[in-house]
Amino acid sequence: MSIAIQRENTEFLYQQVIAIIREMQTSGTLRPGDRLPSLRALSRKLSVSIPTIRQAYVELERLDVIEARPKSGYFLRVEQTAVQPKRARLARKPMPVKRQNLIEDVFASVFGALNQPGQVALGVANPTAAFPSDKALARIMRQVLAKSGANSLNYCPMDGFPPLKRQLALRYLDQGLQVSPDEVLITNGAQEALAIALQCVAERGDVIAVESPVYFGVLELIESLGMMALEIPLCPDDGLWLEDLRTALDAHPVKACIFSTSISNPLGSFMPDERRAQLVALLESRDIPLIEDDVYGDLYFTEARGTPAQVYSRKGLVITCASFSKTAAPGYRVGWLVSNRYLDHARRLKRAMSCSSSLLNQWTLSEFVASGDYDRAMLNLRRVLRANKDRAVALVKQHFPPETRVTDPLGGGVLWIELPAGKDSGRLFQVALAHDIAVTPGILFSVSNCYKRCVRVSYGLPWSDAVDAAFATLGRLCASPEV
Amino acid sequence: MSIAIQRENTEFLYQQVIAIIREMQTSGTLRPGDRLPSLRALSRKLSVSIPTIRQAYVELERLDVIEARPKSGYFLRVEQTAVQPKRARLARKPMPVKRQNLIEDVFASVFGALNQPGQVALGVANPTAAFPSDKALARIMRQVLAKSGANSLNYCPMDGFPPLKRQLALRYLDQGLQVSPDEVLITNGAQEALAIALQCVAERGDVIAVESPVYFGVLELIESLGMMALEIPLCPDDGLWLEDLRTALDAHPVKACIFSTSISNPLGSFMPDERRAQLVALLESRDIPLIEDDVYGDLYFTEARGTPAQVYSRKGLVITCASFSKTAAPGYRVGWLVSNRYLDHARRLKRAMSCSSSLLNQWTLSEFVASGDYDRAMLNLRRVLRANKDRAVALVKQHFPPETRVTDPLGGGVLWIELPAGKDSGRLFQVALAHDIAVTPGILFSVSNCYKRCVRVSYGLPWSDAVDAAFATLGRLCASPEV
Repeated sequence: MSIAIQRENTEFLYQQVIAIIREMQTSGTLRPGDRLPSLRALSRKLSVSIPTIRQAYVELERLDVIEARPKSGYFLRVEQTAVQPKRARLARKPMPVKRQNLIEDVFASVFGALNQPGQVALGVANPTAAFPSDKALARIMRQVLAKSGANSLNYCPMDGFPPLKRQLALRYLDQGLQVSPDEVLITNGAQEALAIALQCVAERGDVIAVESPVYFGVLELIESLGMMALEIPLCPDDGLWLEDLRTALDAHPVKACIFSTSISNPLGSFMPDERRAQLVALLESRDIPLIEDDVYGDLYFTEARGTPAQVYSRKGLVITCASFSKTAAPGYRVGWLVSNRYLDHARRLKRAMSCSSSLLNQWTLSEFVASGDYDRAMLNLRRVLRANKDRAVALVKQHFPPETRVTDPLGGGVLWIELPAGKDSGRLFQVALAHDIAVTPGILFSVSNCYKRCVRVSYGLPWSDAVDAAFATLGRLCASPEV
Repeated sequence: MSIAIQRENTEFLYQQVIAIIREMQTSGTLRPGDRLPSLRALSRKLSVSIPTIRQAYVELERLDVIEARPKSGYFLRVEQTAVQPKRARLARKPMPVKRQNLIEDVFASVFGALNQPGQVALGVANPTAAFPSDKALARIMRQVLAKSGANSLNYCPMDGFPPLKRQLALRYLDQGLQVSPDEVLITNGAQEALAIALQCVAERGDVIAVESPVYFGVLELIESLGMMALEIPLCPDDGLWLEDLRTALDAHPVKACIFSTSISNPLGSFMPDERRAQLVALLESRDIPLIEDDVYGDLYFTEARGTPAQVYSRKGLVITCASFSKTAAPGYRVGWLVSNRYLDHARRLKRAMSCSSSLLNQWTLSEFVASGDYDRAMLNLRRVLRANKDRAVALVKQHFPPETRVTDPLGGGVLWIELPAGKDSGRLFQVALAHDIAVTPGILFSVSNCYKRCVRVSYGLPWSDAVDAAFATLGRLCASPEV
């Protein structure tokens, strides 16, 4: 490949730059989602002025070959011909959840991969790994250890570390949610927040509406509490359709809802703000509590963050649950819930279920947020995740069988892939494991045995040749008769 | 006070040493529970040979004035004329638990005191504070941060950090319990272990036998799960009496038991091993599961640690729950449960309720245990707690009204004080708070409104003049008509 400008050539210089970029694209040196060299770097490399490089990039942008992203630079565009998975059919009956052993098996493998050097961990939704904040957090924790002394070992107040609660309340004020620090209850990750919230609003035997496909942790929780799940299908781009929900509410005695109100897992859909406002109005008109799972809220690829559903609440029936597990430190186990109406009940449940949460981890995260490090980390994490997403989507289109459908997530860290008819993601899960690749089979994301052809694949990890190779291997396996 | 030997005196030198010690005792320079100067130190101070000092100490020991403790030295004996609280009457009916607001109020004050410099925190059972391991733990955590890098942020496997599970299994082997690391499930403190264990063996409406007085966290848990509590009175020295339990089991449909099988909170009683074996046999003969709360097991003042009840199990109906919260780091929130029979169910509940636990905290504690630092810390912690206990008992006898009864705990970090007739520990709680002293009123430790005259006072804190003064103030308040 020629990467030099030929001065004797009759072409304009900027056209030669375009030709070079095109050639890098054709040869695979630059792949969809890759960041192009900066104007300055390429100018230096080719010994051509910056305005000339800029002229080339502007032309490539006009041709839809590359795209500019504010403060990030230019990126090779992902071809947008991907076909999204179809929306599942309308709500079925409420179902009891009984899938323990399934999850047990999958979890051992999927979580095991996280700590096994040889494995490619595409099974866990662990997006912080794409741009980890470990150095900043370790630095802060060392400072906290130094200044707290014996206090570092103390019980934290049951409701949480007051400075962290203040920081979270401040963030919610920025998002339009009037909340006092007292209304924030710190929990052991969002999973405990969801568990407490659900016990505040429903009891054994009650019907809980969930999105479909739904994060399996929500199903496990419903199962452990002896409740029933009613699945409401999501659209891969804009999430929940209110008419579907209304139909389901008319047909079934729904006691409460758990929805990813902004970015969903595994679909990566993003519900528009005005829809979210209507959702809250619909539910509150029927006095149905909404537990909003907003763990991916800060990982948006859209123009702006989604507004928490609780902002639109008039009756206080919305409980917001979130955590730092998808944004900063999954292993710290720091999550929270926000509610006024259910606060007393939630506090009692928290005390009874696990007493207080880790002081040191909360202390460290509170300083991480207060210092502005968290916001800076999010800018970077979103940028990297978005580039990874483009790359992953492109690789699926390149390597998977032609009939494959794949989401184009609007946030978060996972793709949802629907394999062609006749394929089985459970078999893919098994065969991929034998190739040291962990993925999550779709069957986990529903109580009704649908999504057998679907698989969740994480792009939230540090990208490497091994990850490229893993996507290629997955595609090849999907095309093989083994799957 | 004369602290010099008078060579011209006709007394033997060792008798003069005895007189000097006696005088220090009378003047209050040496108080019950205080450590005497070492042989070497006193020999140097008085310019008398070490054998002479030893002769004096041996004589004082013979007179029951002081006592020798292996590897610790000589201590001024606590007069053993304390009258222990009476054992409560026999088991009442199973009762639903409904005391949320009570606990709410008390907790805010009692936990608040922990982090308020001006307050004396006698309300929280936080014995590690008496001899905190913060330096060793901070050092280890810094090492873990340095070597783990981005892995420090990762999700821990759901069941716990494998090296920690191995360390715990090794410790149980030493205690006679054959357990594999797989049978250890790490939880967010012992409270979550108890919550999971109880959900493994009982359901809403079931009757759970508990000791009386009982740690209020157990009652909150039973309340939150909609179960009933049946109280079995403890004896302040040797704990549960099996005949009482048998009578209760005959009369009521007990579904499961939660007992502090070695050291109880708040009584500080210690059940002898052979009794514990009989307890397990009694319960297993009726197929009743036993959840043993062993959080204070390592804080014994007796010759040896109590054997875990699970050692005596033949049917696997015993679930052992414990944590590092009373021994090393309450704020780390690392506890565990041990079971084979209920393991699968327990794992599912753990996943559903809070996903995994904090990796960094588990990692640090696993190295703390593996290095031997934990065992060394326990030797010191037990020594300090025992001295504190003697001091605290002596202060109660010195300052409280004559009819006061007080336990002489065989382990742990709290005293249980029964005030004279007509006194109310709820009022003491309020009045003491106004004097910046937090204590825990007895009413919290029962569902049946008994123990109104009792109060739990912690001696598990770094001793200081302020603590001495707080005990004196409490005694004075108890004598006043305000209480």
